Amino acid sequence: MIRLPRGTQDILPGESEKWQYVEATFIDICRRFNYQEIRTPIFEHTELFQRGVGDTTDIVQKEMYTFEDRGNRSLTLRPEGTASVVRAFVQNKLYGLANQPQKLFYNGPMFRYERPQQGRMRQFVQLGVEALGSKDPAIDAEVITLAMTFYQSLGLHSLKLVINSLGDKESRENHRQALVNHFSPYREELCSDCQTRLDQNPLRVLDCKKDRDHKAMKEAPKILDYLTDEAREYFDQVKQYLDASGIRYEVDSNLVRGLDYYNHTAFEIMSAAEGFGAITTLSGGGRYNGLVEDLDGPETPGIGFALSVERLLMALENEGITLPVNEGLDVYVVSLGESSKVPAYALTQRLRKSGLSVDKDYLDRKMKAQFKDADRNQAKFVVVLGEEEVKQQQATVKDMATGEQEMVAFDTLVDYIQSK
Amino acid sequence: MIRLPRGTQDILPGESEKWQYVEATFIDICRRFNYQEIRTPIFEHTELFQRGVGDTTDIVQKEMYTFEDRGNRSLTLRPEGTASVVRAFVQNKLYGLANQPQKLFYNGPMFRYERPQQGRMRQFVQLGVEALGSKDPAIDAEVITLAMTFYQSLGLHSLKLVINSLGDKESRENHRQALVNHFSPYREELCSDCQTRLDQNPLRVLDCKKDRDHKAMKEAPKILDYLTDEAREYFDQVKQYLDASGIRYEVDSNLVRGLDYYNHTAFEIMSAAEGFGAITTLSGGGRYNGLVEDLDGPETPGIGFALSVERLLMALENEGITLPVNEGLDVYVVSLGESSKVPAYALTQRLRKSGLSVDKDYLDRKMKAQFKDADRNQAKFVVVLGEEEVKQQQATVKDMATGEQEMVAFDTLVDYIQSK
Repeated sequence: MIRLPRGTQDILPGESEKWQYVEATFIDICRRFNYQEIRTPIFEHTELFQRGVGDTTDIVQKEMYTFEDRGNRSLTLRPEGTASVVRAFVQNKLYGLANQPQKLFYNGPMFRYERPQQGRMRQFVQLGVEALGSKDPAIDAEVITLAMTFYQSLGLHSLKLVINSLGDKESRENHRQALVNHFSPYREELCSDCQTRLDQNPLRVLDCKKDRDHKAMKEAPKILDYLTDEAREYFDQVKQYLDASGIRYEVDSNLVRGLDYYNHTAFEIMSAAEGFGAITTLSGGGRYNGLVEDLDGPETPGIGFALSVERLLMALENEGITLPVNEGLDVYVVSLGESSKVPAYALTQRLRKSGLSVDKDYLDRKMKAQFKDADRNQAKFVVVLGEEEVKQQQATVKDMATGEQEMVAFDTLVDYIQSK
Repeated sequence: MIRLPRGTQDILPGESEKWQYVEATFIDICRRFNYQEIRTPIFEHTELFQRGVGDTTDIVQKEMYTFEDRGNRSLTLRPEGTASVVRAFVQNKLYGLANQPQKLFYNGPMFRYERPQQGRMRQFVQLGVEALGSKDPAIDAEVITLAMTFYQSLGLHSLKLVINSLGDKESRENHRQALVNHFSPYREELCSDCQTRLDQNPLRVLDCKKDRDHKAMKEAPKILDYLTDEAREYFDQVKQYLDASGIRYEVDSNLVRGLDYYNHTAFEIMSAAEGFGAITTLSGGGRYNGLVEDLDGPETPGIGFALSVERLLMALENEGITLPVNEGLDVYVVSLGESSKVPAYALTQRLRKSGLSVDKDYLDRKMKAQFKDADRNQAKFVVVLGEEEVKQQQATVKDMATGEQEMVAFDTLVDYIQSK
């Protein structure tokens, strides 16, 4: 038997309605915040991610699905959304539109070749936003608030918002030098990845899972102690806007995002619920001033975040939250005898035309089994059609909640059911 | 500058709302017809399509995006939806559920390496349904009706529905032999592809674009003349069901679907509008009894169709149909002076919480430019906040349709706007 590829999943009826609900909610929150949808291709030229995500990241070094197409172009299934959105922003000259900043959202599958585990799939779905063209700290707060509002509107309670500032270029340079000075004496004790990071991108040493408990980690220089006045003022304003709209957060100077392009505001939202498992991060994002220029666009500040739908659904389940889906059928049409088959089909179509959800039997089942099928589909009404009813152009309508039955003419059937 | 890969597209704000509308409509029609969503991975093991789509098809021979992952598995970006849905049906044992037939729909990108042209992209989006587990001719009619209902509910008028029967195994064997007998004398005059088809799958000779005008095409044996009694009776019943619910169609014995797995009912829906261009087919589908067994499942009949969203949008544009999207903002919050910035932000969040769509300036614009931004966003109300208003905890609300202005306390602002 051919099975699905490792690290991917089928989302079946019963589950798919939850995805629809979550997506519809996200679209509605984005509407309130005035973010509009952008859709970019599933694959891009590999160079985009090398330049846009960063050559030194795990994603680019180890996790990309890269292949050549029949024209020998190197293509890569997108591992994240930001690089693609920025590429589209530059290519389509969205920076030239009157409407600025451009506030965009996306929804779609991403791909990373990692070891599959709970909450980590090779194909996973991200919802995210990008706000391009403003360096107002209010928009940092807006993006964070959008994420929190989305989670809250689905009913999640146990959320922890952690923010940090990674500073501007000068702050980062100072911090970088301090990190190199701090970790160099321990160089030989660190893992081989960290030894490389120490040369290429010492900030990411702080993110290492292997060396997490090394004694040098605890006293590592913190970025917040190296912020320039300007960067500190920016961060203070972001916090002020969050305070003003009642968003609670913790400042964690150790928060480093796994991608190279972040600066200034960085944040993560975690599930703080008990028993959620090892991977508690639900979403993360931050500011990426400079990325648009790196991808050949004009100087344009930007900020965004992405969240994983898989982990969101895990968090909902863990908090015992049931989404309002699975409403059941409005009407099930039962037919008796050969001659009522075609009329029952026609009546089914007629009821559907009015907007009702309607089904019938397609397995030549006997009446009892048809009623059972109606129950299985949680039908609110059953319409019964036999030879006699067809002749008289009417049907027996049974209200499944009350058990009441009534004869109703075909022509008034829609009105009858909708009035109940 | 890094551009998007050839044959793919960015869908930008202004366009993306149409996609959302079309998808929401499709989900609603599927709800009425009681089809539930299934989501399968973007890539599958290559073998699935070799076996499920057919080794002799153009898709498998020329058009697939096939690559090896880091574990040396041959994977392929899905070129169509049916094989994946059937794989998921088998793997997840959906045939064992009480609810039968399984009526499924899907929505997602597909990938074919073809020469890009209008209405033919290398990444394109298909909406489709599959009904697995019933061989009732009523469900063939239902699937066709679902497609037609979807198009009609979007306002398309100039549609042509063409149906055919490809018969059962015996019908096809007889027809196949008749085709071989008919075309063999002209073998050397046919294109090289057709010469191969004549040996492997002579039915597909009828589908050839190169030999379309060859004299032997016109008098080629028609499948409808080779149907067994049973297959003819099945086809007659499908037509009867379509007639009963007022769906108009043409029977075209030359209609052959490009995939190997079809039998019995086949159909296509075309745009009959003038000036639509060379590619007029909007969607197609048919019955594929035997495919589930071919993919190692139990004997299970099936029927489905897929439609292209790209071509649907072209057809809508060609018929001059505007979808009801782009509603404009509910409220734009204008702030005057440094001290009203944070309160304006907080008020914006407060209004959003109530469900309204609200935005403000993030570019430190002067009042006049903020009003201009409000206009650009088609704001229905503008809320103006200056130092004095903040002190008094109230704001000036301007109704942009009437020009009326009124002072409203912060606490009653939501009610005030919603009541208008």
